[in-house]
Amino acid sequence: MDQQEIVAMATDRAVDLGRRLDFLLEIDKLKAIVRRNRLVDGSRYENTAEHSWHLAVAAMILAPDAGPEVDVLRAMEILLVHDIVEIDADDTYTYDTEAQRHKQALETAAAERVFGLLPEVQALRLRSLWDEYEARETPTARFAYALDRLQPLLLNAASDGASWRENGITHSQTAAVNGPIVDGSPLWWDVAQDVLGRAADNGILGDDRPEVRD
Amino acid sequence: MDQQEIVAMATDRAVDLGRRLDFLLEIDKLKAIVRRNRLVDGSRYENTAEHSWHLAVAAMILAPDAGPEVDVLRAMEILLVHDIVEIDADDTYTYDTEAQRHKQALETAAAERVFGLLPEVQALRLRSLWDEYEARETPTARFAYALDRLQPLLLNAASDGASWRENGITHSQTAAVNGPIVDGSPLWWDVAQDVLGRAADNGILGDDRPEVRD
Repeated sequence: MDQQEIVAMATDRAVDLGRRLDFLLEIDKLKAIVRRNRLVDGSRYENTAEHSWHLAVAAMILAPDAGPEVDVLRAMEILLVHDIVEIDADDTYTYDTEAQRHKQALETAAAERVFGLLPEVQALRLRSLWDEYEARETPTARFAYALDRLQPLLLNAASDGASWRENGITHSQTAAVNGPIVDGSPLWWDVAQDVLGRAADNGILGDDRPEVRD
Repeated sequence: MDQQEIVAMATDRAVDLGRRLDFLLEIDKLKAIVRRNRLVDGSRYENTAEHSWHLAVAAMILAPDAGPEVDVLRAMEILLVHDIVEIDADDTYTYDTEAQRHKQALETAAAERVFGLLPEVQALRLRSLWDEYEARETPTARFAYALDRLQPLLLNAASDGASWRENGITHSQTAAVNGPIVDGSPLWWDVAQDVLGRAADNGILGDDRPEVRD
């Protein structure tokens, strides 16, 4: 038995349920999208489905640091679906600036296809969550994006900089990419800067800081 | 650099943030807890972190089938944290009735330790989500539990019954275990019964139905 056969049986019962189960079975592919950062224990690369879970829990747990204008439950929903487009578009490495330029068209086509599997009302709702995230204009989207920067930074640091070392990443690159963490909370950004500084001190992140104290 | 060093730096900035980051890094271990069902493509077993992501998205997508007394956003929160205890207690196979009997004490100890990493207010909140799920007394908890039965059923069926065949599972066993799907929606249970019947017809699920039509 395969996805199509299940969807056909569900569609016989109710057309909308068939479409919803097709979507749910389709997004199972997110578990096979491999990211560039490793798990805390360094044993393997993280996949995008478990990354999305970690971010949604992080939104719950770090909610006390959010400003009053952040809708934390909406941020959770955004984070659960923000990377589903990677099923078609694959993960784009944060530090690959060339790939980042081509990303938008690929991801928009993916959003059309994958969200389009759903009944129209739900397709529009998921698209609005994804569009809000991509635009980074609302406090809620900026809170979500800050978490999407903070979580891999923490995993990279905790796994002794495995991914930074594998890719020859330097302190100035991480500082530029992770600056939006401050939009989640200035306190997170203080901690992130402490961690990045210590990582450069320890040699697990390339040290190109303009001045290094003795 | 490791988890302890990061937590120490965060604690120097703010004690509560240190505890929250300790919890977030600790639950990374859920990505290494392996379940008994396979992904849709059959390529490997699912882990509990990506399973939790899939369930939270399923709650969003299947919300239109929920009764008016179900708090779907709370169900999402429940599903994101309901299996975190497996970090210490491991996954218990649904069809292993002996292991199921020992599960409760192990999981309660795990809840004490892992949720206890958090600041007290948050520890109590996560414990209340987990307790609500375990008690299955509220419509919201029963909706969440129905999804936790429906999702692996769909993955098992879509992967051509790989996990059922590996473990010699029969139709009557799946019917007994999956009955609570009806609490999520009678429509889901109709579809589940169609799928289980077809699986038994196809021989990917042991056929011990009392009467089988020609």
